[in-house]
Amino acid sequence: MNHPSPFLSELRRPLPPALAQALAARFGERFSVASAVREHHGRDESPFPPTPPEGVVFAHSTQEVADLVALCRAHRYPLIAFGAGSSLEGHLLAVQGGISVDLSQMNSILAVDADDLTVTVQAGVLRKQLNEQLKSTGLFFPIDPGADASIGGMCATRASGTNAVRYGTMRENVLSLTVVTADGKVIRTAGRAKKSSAGYDLTRLFIGSEGTLGIITEITLKLYPLPEAMSAAVVNFPTMAAAVATVIQTIQLGVPIARSEFLCERTIRAINAHSHTTLREAPTLFFEFHGTEASAREQAELVQQIARDHGGQDFEWASRPEDRTRLWNARHNAYFACLQVRPGCRAISTDTCVPISRLADSITGARAILDKGNFPTMLLGHVGDGNFHAVLLINPDDPVEVEQAERLNDEIVRLALSMDGTCTGEHGIGLHKIGFLVEEVGDDAIELMRRIKLAFDPDNILNPGKIFRLEA
Amino acid sequence: MNHPSPFLSELRRPLPPALAQALAARFGERFSVASAVREHHGRDESPFPPTPPEGVVFAHSTQEVADLVALCRAHRYPLIAFGAGSSLEGHLLAVQGGISVDLSQMNSILAVDADDLTVTVQAGVLRKQLNEQLKSTGLFFPIDPGADASIGGMCATRASGTNAVRYGTMRENVLSLTVVTADGKVIRTAGRAKKSSAGYDLTRLFIGSEGTLGIITEITLKLYPLPEAMSAAVVNFPTMAAAVATVIQTIQLGVPIARSEFLCERTIRAINAHSHTTLREAPTLFFEFHGTEASAREQAELVQQIARDHGGQDFEWASRPEDRTRLWNARHNAYFACLQVRPGCRAISTDTCVPISRLADSITGARAILDKGNFPTMLLGHVGDGNFHAVLLINPDDPVEVEQAERLNDEIVRLALSMDGTCTGEHGIGLHKIGFLVEEVGDDAIELMRRIKLAFDPDNILNPGKIFRLEA
Repeated sequence: MNHPSPFLSELRRPLPPALAQALAARFGERFSVASAVREHHGRDESPFPPTPPEGVVFAHSTQEVADLVALCRAHRYPLIAFGAGSSLEGHLLAVQGGISVDLSQMNSILAVDADDLTVTVQAGVLRKQLNEQLKSTGLFFPIDPGADASIGGMCATRASGTNAVRYGTMRENVLSLTVVTADGKVIRTAGRAKKSSAGYDLTRLFIGSEGTLGIITEITLKLYPLPEAMSAAVVNFPTMAAAVATVIQTIQLGVPIARSEFLCERTIRAINAHSHTTLREAPTLFFEFHGTEASAREQAELVQQIARDHGGQDFEWASRPEDRTRLWNARHNAYFACLQVRPGCRAISTDTCVPISRLADSITGARAILDKGNFPTMLLGHVGDGNFHAVLLINPDDPVEVEQAERLNDEIVRLALSMDGTCTGEHGIGLHKIGFLVEEVGDDAIELMRRIKLAFDPDNILNPGKIFRLEA
Repeated sequence: MNHPSPFLSELRRPLPPALAQALAARFGERFSVASAVREHHGRDESPFPPTPPEGVVFAHSTQEVADLVALCRAHRYPLIAFGAGSSLEGHLLAVQGGISVDLSQMNSILAVDADDLTVTVQAGVLRKQLNEQLKSTGLFFPIDPGADASIGGMCATRASGTNAVRYGTMRENVLSLTVVTADGKVIRTAGRAKKSSAGYDLTRLFIGSEGTLGIITEITLKLYPLPEAMSAAVVNFPTMAAAVATVIQTIQLGVPIARSEFLCERTIRAINAHSHTTLREAPTLFFEFHGTEASAREQAELVQQIARDHGGQDFEWASRPEDRTRLWNARHNAYFACLQVRPGCRAISTDTCVPISRLADSITGARAILDKGNFPTMLLGHVGDGNFHAVLLINPDDPVEVEQAERLNDEIVRLALSMDGTCTGEHGIGLHKIGFLVEEVGDDAIELMRRIKLAFDPDNILNPGKIFRLEA
């Protein structure tokens, strides 16, 4: 393993009593050191052991976050932003101690500017809540990572998910951020214009910075008119390769599909068991088409033709909203369905993304690698973008399995890197991929990232220990 | 005027003789101090007086650029990247002296990965050359700023143009950059995967950095399949407000138009005179529709209906490639057509961009402001993005006109900023908008930009004097 343990106890710092006192004075009952509260803020969906912060503050405003940062900064004490706790790479684990900045109560939608197709929200707003509250406007926010993540967390990890093939990722859908810097200052990175050439792109710099450069407190997002027509389809294939070839050709022809998800037969089996569905247990693609009635139909026909050319069968339609919802709920629950295949297991999920022409080699290569493991594994993902996840269900108490899983994970990532791909399409680096990031971009690029970090946060108080090691 | 003159002679540094000797030894005849060569590299399309560099190096490879940076760095001597010389804000003017790094001979297309919809080019490749060489692949690169700019320069200014309403800007269409840093190191910011959450977004940080953080030498771009159908249309309106309202409604309904350009009646008059066209001299919209035959037709019908609702008339079609080309050539030559309205003049072009709902107020407000001037002015732009340009044709030798133009320019920018817009949608900050950038994002955000600059380029040798003033 080339990943040094991130849980080095000598880096953990206890909460300075003077800071504890100051936090209690400033935040009253919204500052907690109760162990249940700390435990809750010390775990995410990653396979890492819980690593709680020393205290938690439930912030109510940007100004409160700024005050909190100023207090912690005076003690050079770490701060870790916390949204919904749905990250997958240990982003919120308090490996050096610190205060968890819980933003979940900053959950107001501040401004819906329907005429501009924008919305401004507090960082703790959840994805589903946002779309629920947008319903009456005829607009929606398309980015959908599956989990009901917070918008702030989605910014911090540069999240994407099932709709990214058409609508892009958080990178493309954030217009502006309000950020509290390590100095305790509040900046707004941009206005609400759709494009701008005004100076360095601070917005994109904070997106994907995993809480290490600043704490995002407010976000202005692009919205889209709800399409006149939305339809979904399921199609089965004789082989994984045939399914993937269908997606590749669809992308290469420029069909503007809204979603295209691949699920291997094992994933479908897990979903059937978990969601009581009766999907055929074969390599499967889920599609969604958005447009006018005519254009959505035209897209669907094109894709159906391409699928047929690759042996696709049982093309099933879901045009009614409730049928589409059932289908996508099944997809979204796939991760949890997989987990239930092996009670008591923890899942390691890869997140590679490759240029689209290499997708078939990347997925079939991953399957061959996974077959060397002695535990259940599944493949699924956002194949229209070249991104997929291998899910490895391991017994976290069995060091042999853990070691083997890490080795297979390494092999899958290296295969993607050899194809000019990335170790993470959407989950982020966190604790787990620090070594892979170096392999992917090289020492000199990491050095630039380090310099940015030190320029923004010289005391290294913002989510220390994540993305890269600060010492060269 | 709140813009201090950028042409402070005390900042100009002559070329150190030892550096001149070293450059001659390394680059032979491709290092020039000839005054004609220097003059050519000291002017762009901005209204600023020519400000030549002290020498020019014609680079042939990334390694040569790295060697050049290392040589200049040893003397702490400035370097200014030069592509096609089409920038509009004085980006390439050598206000502190320096060596112009001419990348125009780095004009090879390194790899067309048609199956991945990507292409990798050297920075000096020109936009039109790229699409010419892509023709046989059935793919194209849509970003079109009008000028036949270099791809490297388009990255450096975060360029966009007429197609951005559908395809996005350089921000959305660059996958990876090869960059020479101020240390003379060569980094590649990312692989070719369509999306990634791997660390800080160095790609987006260099895009729009105007040569101040590194010298971009190679670029991997996204490509798109040439649409099955492309058609263009021209429609006239009784008023500017009616034309703009048509665009706003088109955007709000989510019609995926490929281009929507506004031209005021004065711009049309200039075009008719310059391009020998017979367009009706009224507020006019040019549209382009991309898609399958059916979807392009459907879009066109929708837009025609919206235009009619706003009094649009004389809907004229151009489906044949040669007709479309003539139309868009007329649009692209609009800037030069405007210049000819007043022989000997120089043009100041504003570049504001506002949230779409404020576009009508922004444009009619700009018209009212311009009417206070004693010189010809026109309005045109990429209104689907909320971006437009006011062109002010002034006598550069008349200080009264210059001062008045700057004042009107200030008013137009402040109006856009009051609408949560930006001072520059696509031209960049350069020398001219340093003061506006401060107004737009505030001192604390500028301070972060300064820190990035100093972290990347502590000796301030990369295009010094642009975007912001380095001293706080």
